[in-house]
Amino acid sequence: MSKQLTVLESEVCCAPLTAATVSAEAATDLAAAFKALGDPVRLQLLSMIASADGGEACVCDLTPAFDLTGPTISHHLKVLREAGLVESDRRGTWVWYRANRPRMAALSALLDIAPAT
Amino acid sequence: MSKQLTVLESEVCCAPLTAATVSAEAATDLAAAFKALGDPVRLQLLSMIASADGGEACVCDLTPAFDLTGPTISHHLKVLREAGLVESDRRGTWVWYRANRPRMAALSALLDIAPAT
Repeated sequence: MSKQLTVLESEVCCAPLTAATVSAEAATDLAAAFKALGDPVRLQLLSMIASADGGEACVCDLTPAFDLTGPTISHHLKVLREAGLVESDRRGTWVWYRANRPRMAALSALLDIAPAT
Repeated sequence: MSKQLTVLESEVCCAPLTAATVSAEAATDLAAAFKALGDPVRLQLLSMIASADGGEACVCDLTPAFDLTGPTISHHLKVLREAGLVESDRRGTWVWYRANRPRMAALSALLDIAPAT
């Protein structure tokens, strides 16, 4: 089981930033996820994984898309996994990744603020 | 006029990560915004600003909520502003901040992915 930050679903899901001030505890968890998204390569990796046919992507398909070494791509995937943004399974030689959709939905809801009144 | 990263609205707005792979150019802009959100204090500041009565908050109301110095809070607000997440106006002695709602909506839409099929 990979190390993952705890998702505080009850505090996070569906409560936009305009609804109330985020608690310090929730902010720490959420900031870790946003920090993981704060890199162009990781954002592209997550995009490739989330848009892959069948909802999952093999590391063997991800690595050739970048002008980066395998270990560098593996490091970025580890950061995404530890932030709870992707989940992974090893099958034989390769590791497969899929997006953690509830986690992404919670982050989306947080930023989904109503127009100013 | 404060320095702000260009928002690539046409590429960003309303296209979730599942729709297509994010281009390298868009990923750089988006990652900068997520990186700015990747700090608990900045997330709380943005939450306080976005949820403030009238949609804007005075730096004089934000600073006392944290056990941090004024310059530290100002630095965090500058990071949020340079990432295009908040806008600011000086009125007399104080600077007032409001959330850049279209920018936040674009980030929200990006993470708003449909359930796996």
